[in-house]
Amino acid sequence: MRIGMIAPPWFALPPKGYGGIEFVVHLLTEGLVRRGHDVTLFASGDSETLARLSYVYGRAPSEKIATHSHIEIIHGLEAYTQARDFDLIHDHDGFGSRSMGALVNRLVGTPVVATLHGPADAPTQESLAALRDSLRFIAITDYQRQGFPDLHFVATIPNAIDIERYPFSDEKDDYLLFIGRMIADKGAHSAVEVAKRLDARLILAGKINEEPERAYFAEQVEPLLTDRIYFRGEVDGSTKAELYRRARCTLFPIQWPEPFGLVMIESMAAGTPVVAFRHGSVPEVIEHGRTGFIVETIDEMVDAVNHVGEIDPAECRRAVEERFSIDGFVRAHERAYRTLLDEGPSWATGAWSSPLA
Amino acid sequence: MRIGMIAPPWFALPPKGYGGIEFVVHLLTEGLVRRGHDVTLFASGDSETLARLSYVYGRAPSEKIATHSHIEIIHGLEAYTQARDFDLIHDHDGFGSRSMGALVNRLVGTPVVATLHGPADAPTQESLAALRDSLRFIAITDYQRQGFPDLHFVATIPNAIDIERYPFSDEKDDYLLFIGRMIADKGAHSAVEVAKRLDARLILAGKINEEPERAYFAEQVEPLLTDRIYFRGEVDGSTKAELYRRARCTLFPIQWPEPFGLVMIESMAAGTPVVAFRHGSVPEVIEHGRTGFIVETIDEMVDAVNHVGEIDPAECRRAVEERFSIDGFVRAHERAYRTLLDEGPSWATGAWSSPLA
Repeated sequence: MRIGMIAPPWFALPPKGYGGIEFVVHLLTEGLVRRGHDVTLFASGDSETLARLSYVYGRAPSEKIATHSHIEIIHGLEAYTQARDFDLIHDHDGFGSRSMGALVNRLVGTPVVATLHGPADAPTQESLAALRDSLRFIAITDYQRQGFPDLHFVATIPNAIDIERYPFSDEKDDYLLFIGRMIADKGAHSAVEVAKRLDARLILAGKINEEPERAYFAEQVEPLLTDRIYFRGEVDGSTKAELYRRARCTLFPIQWPEPFGLVMIESMAAGTPVVAFRHGSVPEVIEHGRTGFIVETIDEMVDAVNHVGEIDPAECRRAVEERFSIDGFVRAHERAYRTLLDEGPSWATGAWSSPLA
Repeated sequence: MRIGMIAPPWFALPPKGYGGIEFVVHLLTEGLVRRGHDVTLFASGDSETLARLSYVYGRAPSEKIATHSHIEIIHGLEAYTQARDFDLIHDHDGFGSRSMGALVNRLVGTPVVATLHGPADAPTQESLAALRDSLRFIAITDYQRQGFPDLHFVATIPNAIDIERYPFSDEKDDYLLFIGRMIADKGAHSAVEVAKRLDARLILAGKINEEPERAYFAEQVEPLLTDRIYFRGEVDGSTKAELYRRARCTLFPIQWPEPFGLVMIESMAAGTPVVAFRHGSVPEVIEHGRTGFIVETIDEMVDAVNHVGEIDPAECRRAVEERFSIDGFVRAHERAYRTLLDEGPSWATGAWSSPLA
């Protein structure tokens, strides 16, 4: 198949630090090329890929992510301008890009499928409603998919990770681990509270370069740091893998309906159980009692950490191999693309969705 | 000609209160239909027009203008989906819509011309640079056009007004007039200062329903109001015309590079001179000494108001008839459209502009 793959423009592929969406797009792109598909990747020009790379922005404009939404549109324009060269386009970018995808589908007929990487919040639901007859969608969890009951999904495909990048160990150090952006939704402050209650060591790591992240960290996390509870900053892939490998457990105290949560899978791959709050996709990722514990309160999280020794690290890794491998991920996409193409060229020719008229 | 005319979605056409862009799009659309063109107007469904009306939003979503940019994109999508039905599309909407215009031009070949209604600020310059080979543009003043040296303009066409809506009078009352949005850029606070210095009556009128407008008004205007300096709120067209007609002069103390300034022309049509700060388009609109005075400071504005009796109201109206009439405006657009179509279908097939790569 001739596939146009649209990554977000904000981080080069593969991302060196933060960039969860970019990383799964990278895995998918490389996997599809290895299986013989003709893939053109639309990403920043400093990306590395086996696919044909096409770009507007030579260097990933990461520093403009919060303020320059036109960059996303210009990036998508470049891809959709080449629409006639593809059997299908797979869009991982935002609403502006997907809107052009709907337009292309209407005018040129190149089918477009969009993976939804974010939560089903009200603005997203409202904006996507207008595209529902002109795009097909892939969800990353059933929880996320339930939030968009009116969209046409061709598949639910959980994110994958490159398991080889997460060395396994069943010998653990005595620290707890928190990895995530420094925003309240990810719950670093709760991780700190749990560690203090247990008088345990805690290592925190995560991105902190946008203003809300700096403000949150300065107000709610930094004042609580000690010589046993410390912040490592944003870490690279190998450092992160090493942190997972030796952690007693990973805390995932999210405060929002997380649509996926790659951190949980990365931790499990390293043989490290996860203790997480029950929100969003968590019950689809963690098998309670097999790969970690799902809890509701700080008290329960404290209690669960005392029981992580009952989890078998080998089972954690096995669960990832079974459900979140690259090979399964790529094959699931091939099936979804086939479903999309089997619908034929007619599916985007109906009346424009207009629930607001 | 078969013309697709894209108005912004935010206010119904013709606008009853605020909506300068919407009003000139209204004048253009009705004028083109009267001259025999086949025009489809994309505007909110509560608009009134002689053209064929096409819409997504049945009611203008005015209250969402500051926060819901996806509305603009969905609105534009509807128009561009019908691209094949038009000889050309004239887009008056924002960057997201114009980007789809560039895409349509590339894929379908329907030529798209966009009128720039805003100032040449840095974000606009940067975002439009990517569209420069796929769109043609119309500027509203030469000052504005100079801010976009790399774009392809087919014409500079000043905004027009419906002169009949502004009854003329050479008998004036003793008040000064300020009409404009309640934001610092428009300078209501300076108008108040001038009036206080002159111990003159001042009537202020203008839109105040977005949060920054409310904040500005509450902090910088409201505390200065007296029984001789008062705020009338947002006024309808006929009230506005009556305010112009009887004003001694209109103050236009802008603090930013105004790309056009309809208020100046409306005032002149009523036979009321304008005293304005020298910014942006002001020297292109006001003829110093004939239709008003162009000044640099508050002191100079105070002094100029004392000399407005030297301006002949009839000359003010005559200047508008000469330069800002609907008929001239519509004919200038016909010429611009012809220029666009005479370029032929090839002009949008070059390499994608990519100044940032």
